[in-house]
Amino acid sequence: MSDHAMNEQRDHDTRLRAWRTGIDTYQEPIVYMRSDCVVCRSEGFTTQTRVLLTAGTRSAVATLNVVEGNWLAPGVAGLSEAAWHALDPAADAWINVSYAPTLDSLSHVRAKVYGHRLDAGAFNAVIGDVAAGRYSDLYLAAFVTACAGDRLDLSETVALTRAMVAVGHRLDWGRETVVDKHCVGGLPGNRTTLLVVPIVAACGLTMPKTSSRAITSPAGTADTMEVLAPVNLDIAAMRRTVERTGGCIVWGGSVRLSPADDVLIRVERPLDLDSEGQLVASVLSKKAAAGSTHVLIDLPVGPTAKVRSTEAAQSLGRRLVEVGRAIGLQVTLRITDGLQPVGRGVGPALEARDVLAVLRGQADAPDDLRQRALRLAGDILELGGAAPNGSGLQLAAEVLADGRAWAKFQAICEAQGGLREVPVTPYRQVITAAVAGRVAAIDNRVLARAAKLAGAPKAPAAGVDVHARIGDPVQAGQPLFTLHAQTAGELDYAGHFVDTRPPIFQISEEA
Amino acid sequence: MSDHAMNEQRDHDTRLRAWRTGIDTYQEPIVYMRSDCVVCRSEGFTTQTRVLLTAGTRSAVATLNVVEGNWLAPGVAGLSEAAWHALDPAADAWINVSYAPTLDSLSHVRAKVYGHRLDAGAFNAVIGDVAAGRYSDLYLAAFVTACAGDRLDLSETVALTRAMVAVGHRLDWGRETVVDKHCVGGLPGNRTTLLVVPIVAACGLTMPKTSSRAITSPAGTADTMEVLAPVNLDIAAMRRTVERTGGCIVWGGSVRLSPADDVLIRVERPLDLDSEGQLVASVLSKKAAAGSTHVLIDLPVGPTAKVRSTEAAQSLGRRLVEVGRAIGLQVTLRITDGLQPVGRGVGPALEARDVLAVLRGQADAPDDLRQRALRLAGDILELGGAAPNGSGLQLAAEVLADGRAWAKFQAICEAQGGLREVPVTPYRQVITAAVAGRVAAIDNRVLARAAKLAGAPKAPAAGVDVHARIGDPVQAGQPLFTLHAQTAGELDYAGHFVDTRPPIFQISEEA
Repeated sequence: MSDHAMNEQRDHDTRLRAWRTGIDTYQEPIVYMRSDCVVCRSEGFTTQTRVLLTAGTRSAVATLNVVEGNWLAPGVAGLSEAAWHALDPAADAWINVSYAPTLDSLSHVRAKVYGHRLDAGAFNAVIGDVAAGRYSDLYLAAFVTACAGDRLDLSETVALTRAMVAVGHRLDWGRETVVDKHCVGGLPGNRTTLLVVPIVAACGLTMPKTSSRAITSPAGTADTMEVLAPVNLDIAAMRRTVERTGGCIVWGGSVRLSPADDVLIRVERPLDLDSEGQLVASVLSKKAAAGSTHVLIDLPVGPTAKVRSTEAAQSLGRRLVEVGRAIGLQVTLRITDGLQPVGRGVGPALEARDVLAVLRGQADAPDDLRQRALRLAGDILELGGAAPNGSGLQLAAEVLADGRAWAKFQAICEAQGGLREVPVTPYRQVITAAVAGRVAAIDNRVLARAAKLAGAPKAPAAGVDVHARIGDPVQAGQPLFTLHAQTAGELDYAGHFVDTRPPIFQISEEA
Repeated sequence: MSDHAMNEQRDHDTRLRAWRTGIDTYQEPIVYMRSDCVVCRSEGFTTQTRVLLTAGTRSAVATLNVVEGNWLAPGVAGLSEAAWHALDPAADAWINVSYAPTLDSLSHVRAKVYGHRLDAGAFNAVIGDVAAGRYSDLYLAAFVTACAGDRLDLSETVALTRAMVAVGHRLDWGRETVVDKHCVGGLPGNRTTLLVVPIVAACGLTMPKTSSRAITSPAGTADTMEVLAPVNLDIAAMRRTVERTGGCIVWGGSVRLSPADDVLIRVERPLDLDSEGQLVASVLSKKAAAGSTHVLIDLPVGPTAKVRSTEAAQSLGRRLVEVGRAIGLQVTLRITDGLQPVGRGVGPALEARDVLAVLRGQADAPDDLRQRALRLAGDILELGGAAPNGSGLQLAAEVLADGRAWAKFQAICEAQGGLREVPVTPYRQVITAAVAGRVAAIDNRVLARAAKLAGAPKAPAAGVDVHARIGDPVQAGQPLFTLHAQTAGELDYAGHFVDTRPPIFQISEEA
């Protein structure tokens, strides 16, 4: 055989037809190949081999699962959903399969596991490979675990943050001051962003806000905003919105400001490890990438919130301020009350309804949501120089009261693609107080779980509507909260969950 | 609907028919279910949900992968090979799918991640869940990472070792002295076990040796032995072999002496992390479970061996002796030279060939392998009381020289199922010296990598045959080593790897 013919032969030995299996492996790209396929046999691939898949100009590293079975046709490479989306091949396109390049950055992960400090070069190498999708879930888990707790010192956290900024897009708004906010951890119903952005933008500041969808909660800010307007904007559409209105509230995932963070989250979610360094790097890298200069961090503290003590909040807050300074962000903190849900609704549409009530100045609008939003907006107005120190809150209240914030919110929604009607659910179940007394505590985590079982955030109108707050007196039989669901089955499922748990609302019987 | 009918309805909602997908996910049980199946819909399962699968009296915890696609029939639960073997269902058997029970022991893993000490109760809880298959690969990775390096102190290592012994079988040989040996870490070609066991057994000691397959190396002792005789013996067959011959060399995994170790290894292999505590617990738990009383630990030291300095060997050795004492094992150490490969072959069949040459007293047998085996056998003969102190080496040499060891080895192979022929490969490539000089150093790790890329240990005949040793003079063009492969693709791949690396053999040009 000539050299040319041999090379051609060799190329053919490493090609298979792309086939979409529809298997959702969460985000890890997996390729399914028959053990008797020409590629496995000629290359000596076995299960767990890390392989490089190439389709046209796109490539992705995937983990191989070898298959013995006829459901996978001969000559095809079955792709998991993550692999399919990474390659985006035409139907029946050729996929070239080869060994994944050696991952030299794993030596840094090992060094960190063994307790050594990593320098900026090491973090750049690791995060570069992570963002490029070269780490398997196991490698990601080792890296996340090795950095968990307080294992990253200040300079390591700075280096990690810079590395995460470096691999993403970085927006430039051509303005001296660009404000932003972030709320750490879950507090059901805490949708202040949808109020803060229009208030602040109405005062002339620039606030291009990217928000996340729910990861483990019944609604993320992006999910709630999506009830009212499109949020899947690309960077060009986001830019048009901000240039026209001074603000936006879009989904961060579609602008991919921090691609490394998008990857790390896939193991952080199931592992559920607290990691101060990674939290700081995740938050601040996205703010820096969004082109922000001044960032307000809202830290709700409570026994069932993410941050459980004021000391923990202060320690985390210090780290956020220090790392922010190192990467050129001015960070300010507000430690807030995280004892109970904010507003009444928990779930995208129910929360959107609360937001609209506040913006429209309705008499029945939840006052806690309004007060929280005004305090945060006031802080940002002062931070961004739109109000003298001490008068931000007053300015924010004026702008909300006189309808400028509501007008600005409508303008933002229009610019993002049009204001939408809030949907409602057909199936509801009211949960009432078993005894008379006073509401002593509310378990935020279990309440959030009930809202998810009722269908939130997949069914945007589903969730929980809360009717009583801590300290409220209640009569036996008085409604405490209402489950909202899109289907009878989901209502049943959430209702059964609530019935079989200790009460979500603790009622202390009065003497 | 009556309560009874409703309960029946609910039971039916959680059942699917078992279907074997043939997908090899290495060892993690995965269940594939259609997103529109009744179970996903009624239970709210999503991808990555940890579910409990029950088929008849057997159950297993698996990770769910949701599928959109018609290759998976409606109403079936597709099982990965690991899930299929764990449940062993009849064809079309009903599988009940429910949420996996809460894993309380994860709180201990998190505590360890955050740097806290774990007590015996914590290790028992974690290892109990690990051995029962309740940990996903991500949880295993977090645990292994959190215990890596020197993160386990002495009492934690003792507790981990005891916990690992407690979940496995523990053999009882009814004899006062049962000897064993273990070699720490990789030294390519170091197959002294296949020589030590027959020598020691020929002198009347009992040595029921369980060995591992390759984890990250081109051959484990069990892989090499399997070239010569079956090693997948169950405990009854192992017992028959030892009762008949005084020794055996079997695969530890098939007798499941340390089921927790068998599970941990599935993430340790790809992560490739060093962990003193886990190494000690892994080694000693298997020795204790095998019913050993006296254990010789061979610690090869060299710049590219697993243990790189005499100090590191002594520190690890102390830990092995201390933990051994705590669990009732008498542990003795021999620190050996780990500068270069032992024998000539690297890979199961090539190593087996070297072993046979030594046993048969062939003139071309590798002397380094022979000398190493004699020293270790001599130590064990003294440790087990079969030779007075100082005369073990001489006795070992006599038994090897007069053919008693070879006869014993053949008896052991026969008892294990029959002595086999050693296979050879069709594809070979000779790597030669680029310059004349003297061999100054050999990179064991890169050499092992080349042997693996050539196909070892999956292709037992594949690997590397080494033709020169440190200190040998070589001419330019003289063969240094030969790659052996079962397929042209693998030979090509290994050859390309060798060509594009710095030379594996360092040749210092003579003045």
